[in-house]
Amino acid sequence: MTDKFMSMKNLQFSLHSTVAAMDKTYLEALNGHDKKSMDMVLSAALDFAQKEMHPIFEEMDRIPPTLLAGKVQVHPAVRRILKTLGDDGWISAVFPESWDGDDMPSTLLHCINFIFAAANYSASAYSGLTIGAARLILTFGSRALQDIYLPPMLAGKWQGTMALTEPDAGSSLGDLSTMAAPLDPGVYAISGEKVFISAGDHDGVDNVVHLMLARIKGAPPGPKGISLFVVPKLRPDDQGDLVDNDVTVTQIFHKLGYRGTPITGIRLGEKGNCRGYLVGEPHRGLFSMFKMMNSARLEVGMGATAIATAAYHSALDYCQTRKQGRAITGPRDAPQCAIIQHPDVKRMLLFQRAISEGALSLILQCGIWEDILERYPHEKKYHLLLELLTPVAKSFPSEMGIHSVSQSLQCLGGYGYCEDFPVEQHFRDMRIHPIHEGTTGIQAMDLLGRKVVMEKGKALQFLKEEMDACMEKAGKHKALESMARDLAAAIGVLEKTTLALGTLAMEKGAEAYLADATLYLEMFGHIVIAWQWLGMAAAASTALETGASKKSNVLFYEGKLHVARYYFSHELPKMNALSHILINSDGVTLEMPENCFTG
Amino acid sequence: MTDKFMSMKNLQFSLHSTVAAMDKTYLEALNGHDKKSMDMVLSAALDFAQKEMHPIFEEMDRIPPTLLAGKVQVHPAVRRILKTLGDDGWISAVFPESWDGDDMPSTLLHCINFIFAAANYSASAYSGLTIGAARLILTFGSRALQDIYLPPMLAGKWQGTMALTEPDAGSSLGDLSTMAAPLDPGVYAISGEKVFISAGDHDGVDNVVHLMLARIKGAPPGPKGISLFVVPKLRPDDQGDLVDNDVTVTQIFHKLGYRGTPITGIRLGEKGNCRGYLVGEPHRGLFSMFKMMNSARLEVGMGATAIATAAYHSALDYCQTRKQGRAITGPRDAPQCAIIQHPDVKRMLLFQRAISEGALSLILQCGIWEDILERYPHEKKYHLLLELLTPVAKSFPSEMGIHSVSQSLQCLGGYGYCEDFPVEQHFRDMRIHPIHEGTTGIQAMDLLGRKVVMEKGKALQFLKEEMDACMEKAGKHKALESMARDLAAAIGVLEKTTLALGTLAMEKGAEAYLADATLYLEMFGHIVIAWQWLGMAAAASTALETGASKKSNVLFYEGKLHVARYYFSHELPKMNALSHILINSDGVTLEMPENCFTG
Repeated sequence: MTDKFMSMKNLQFSLHSTVAAMDKTYLEALNGHDKKSMDMVLSAALDFAQKEMHPIFEEMDRIPPTLLAGKVQVHPAVRRILKTLGDDGWISAVFPESWDGDDMPSTLLHCINFIFAAANYSASAYSGLTIGAARLILTFGSRALQDIYLPPMLAGKWQGTMALTEPDAGSSLGDLSTMAAPLDPGVYAISGEKVFISAGDHDGVDNVVHLMLARIKGAPPGPKGISLFVVPKLRPDDQGDLVDNDVTVTQIFHKLGYRGTPITGIRLGEKGNCRGYLVGEPHRGLFSMFKMMNSARLEVGMGATAIATAAYHSALDYCQTRKQGRAITGPRDAPQCAIIQHPDVKRMLLFQRAISEGALSLILQCGIWEDILERYPHEKKYHLLLELLTPVAKSFPSEMGIHSVSQSLQCLGGYGYCEDFPVEQHFRDMRIHPIHEGTTGIQAMDLLGRKVVMEKGKALQFLKEEMDACMEKAGKHKALESMARDLAAAIGVLEKTTLALGTLAMEKGAEAYLADATLYLEMFGHIVIAWQWLGMAAAASTALETGASKKSNVLFYEGKLHVARYYFSHELPKMNALSHILINSDGVTLEMPENCFTG
Repeated sequence: MTDKFMSMKNLQFSLHSTVAAMDKTYLEALNGHDKKSMDMVLSAALDFAQKEMHPIFEEMDRIPPTLLAGKVQVHPAVRRILKTLGDDGWISAVFPESWDGDDMPSTLLHCINFIFAAANYSASAYSGLTIGAARLILTFGSRALQDIYLPPMLAGKWQGTMALTEPDAGSSLGDLSTMAAPLDPGVYAISGEKVFISAGDHDGVDNVVHLMLARIKGAPPGPKGISLFVVPKLRPDDQGDLVDNDVTVTQIFHKLGYRGTPITGIRLGEKGNCRGYLVGEPHRGLFSMFKMMNSARLEVGMGATAIATAAYHSALDYCQTRKQGRAITGPRDAPQCAIIQHPDVKRMLLFQRAISEGALSLILQCGIWEDILERYPHEKKYHLLLELLTPVAKSFPSEMGIHSVSQSLQCLGGYGYCEDFPVEQHFRDMRIHPIHEGTTGIQAMDLLGRKVVMEKGKALQFLKEEMDACMEKAGKHKALESMARDLAAAIGVLEKTTLALGTLAMEKGAEAYLADATLYLEMFGHIVIAWQWLGMAAAASTALETGASKKSNVLFYEGKLHVARYYFSHELPKMNALSHILINSDGVTLEMPENCFTG
């Protein structure tokens, strides 16, 4: 059984070709990083993942967190891992030097997340959550809050969380009812209940810092009355000592997968003694949270991509070593061959690569835009592109990842269904991704209901420009001409479908327009990933044409071209069916009466 | 939370409309059963499933079988259930009166399997395996073997199994190496090892009877040297006492789902004292086994259908009661609505019904053909149709069932991912079905490589006749005209695609022809299920037009028509993309060199 959970060669290829394709005007957005320095970081991350995270991949699943007398106990390695990630600067890396950080570009952070999540998704989640929460405090919090919370969080001693969901407010965040009553300037008494809080409490850290949405007493109802607070488990008193902040763990959820991370329910202010500290302006909580949410969504997409990647490497190893059957056209008495020689098995492996490598490439592309915007916040083009593609980068890996891991499992036959191999765990770990940080349905409404129409469709126009540039580049390679043509045709179909939906909106209203938004998102994903594959194919062709000679490199680039070819012949065409469904929709999903479901 | 795991109304609708549509010439194949008698059986089965099987659905998963000192311990209810199923005649029901059976038609048995599997898939598997094994003994075994084995098996005291797979022979059955050395006429010394044997040993019965494939010493290599044996765990000695037969349990597999049934590895003849008794003629074992395998494959399809159905009912209940969000076009301050009112949620529910009810209908259709063939074994048309559609009836529910249960889970959001609700277990239980009794890849090769081409394509022609008859009937209902046209167009696409693949076979050989067989199977499934939906829509229309008046019935029939409409507008079009992929395949799944996967 292989210990390989990702391909460094492929990650480097994706990272460097994405960087190479970026507009050189913005190169400073990488904060001085070059190929060599980035490779060093990746190599160190892989080393840590191999030594500390991957060996306990199964153990963290088999021995999940427990809740005993209000205390959440997690795998003992969690404390060790968080301490190292703190001490060695992994958590602070993307923070400015003033916070002992390295100003590491987001793109590189995504690569690190990829490596860690492929090694052990549950183990990787803790620090990812802390980074997100700390970034929120850095961006919107007062200097006083920063001084208290950032150092221990970046040191891996305190856990950060995002506390949004409530029992009656999940997708409908605007309905949340956790209350904040003013005590002192910036200080509020918090009361309420939150559920589904990842790493919401555990004994791998000394304190937990919830970035929490709540409603200030008297605030307007709905999304515009929500504010953001820091609500720690232990709060510093006037002497600077940590005292109990009246945050109680009510439950931990027992889950299908992602079992190494505790998902908790918490109750706030049971004894009337829970303090929350306002972050940013009152009633602007959703705005602030969504700034972080966007990168959290990319991170979910990357988690899904990483899990699919790890499952693929398990499947590949099995297919290369498992002997079963023989070529149809060969002699009947030939010895059995490795199953990778069967076209049906190759198809399954090609599919897995098409999904996971395509998704990786897309998220790194989004990372580049994040970095550009960090330094040049007024670059509207990249802002709109990032906004447009975030729901795709979150959902495509999450939804297609289910199919991809399912195919990994299928490659192993009966063994895939057994705990002896890691794929069944990947299958379970994967299934959270279309749910957390906004379900696929929510992403679809975001894409079609907000992003496609914002600024009169400007984002879609920018995307088309990006794709046109890619096609032009690819078209220079003879072998890629037909792929470029297929992408051009796909863009045409996307435009036609979007237009048809726009007409539907005018004729029948917003509900009809959005009824099948999820299918639109799926179709959109197929095209966007085709664009990524065309870009990768162009980069691979260039590498081959400009003298790649080392055999392993040549095979790698040729493999890339085959997967691209597979994507265009076997995956992209599915968008036409989706377009057909959308254009010819007769409104059945809108019209089905609820009472017709009974019986 | 609902305790409902299936809809009796829908099962009766499917059963009775399938029976009503059958050629009346063959009505005797139902062995005297009519609507009323069948409904009584279904009602009794549901009663048993509700009282004895469903209440331990979760418990059997959470407390899986253990192997201790060579003994497999299962949930104590297994013995009780098997005893009742034996005592009350459920196991013997499909057997002839001479074996205390009822000559129950297979169609009705499928319905019972559906009810039991929807209630608790693991609990339902035990008796299903015994019935299959006992049928093999009845069909091919000597009277002496029948007299020894059938009574205790049909009484639920002895477990039957199918022991085919070996560590090095799974999909490639012809390579199995378990040996049988002749001792006395019909009696052989067995030695070898088998894996993945469902219910291969457990303490819920007094004995286990393996229907086992092995190679008689000196037999030719490959599939034509394989014979079928009865290999009991305990064998009767000359005095009729049961003595140890040298069958050792080597392991039980720890699995993703389907955890209430032990899947075992067994070693045979370690001490040189394992006896096997030949069933049927030497070297004809695969032929005999495949007679049973066909109905086992339908049973797998039905298991998948049942699991998808149970998951759907959980999702439906949740969507009807969970309040979240409000209509896009309604007032912002309206109270939250039940999520079933959101079109995206309706779409997910419609999808689940489209898959599970379509699959149920197809398998019952196959059941009718089984029954006709049981009484009229020379009816070539039905023989060919059954052969053609068995791989579809096995694979469509298994593969699409994964998506269906995944959508059930999605309906519950974060709760769907938690053990508090049954859908996560359904998600795990479902995943075995594309693997056991022949993987999807194997079914695809069977369909395209054998069934489509057998007797010069005669089966496909018969299928088209059946579909034509259905379209004619449906076309009489104004509202179904466009669906009938869509099906006609789909048949055209199927024919065109099949022809294109035939040309490919001639030009490039069998390997190219079969390379994407799995996609062909998927496309085939879409069309076959459309045909089933058209038939159901016609039956529902007729019921409405001929005076259905009870409100619950009217809603049910109208619901059926909506789901049919959904299937034709949202699912069937996907076949066009698959046809496009197959017709335009450039052979990439064949040509990808194995060494291009590394890196």
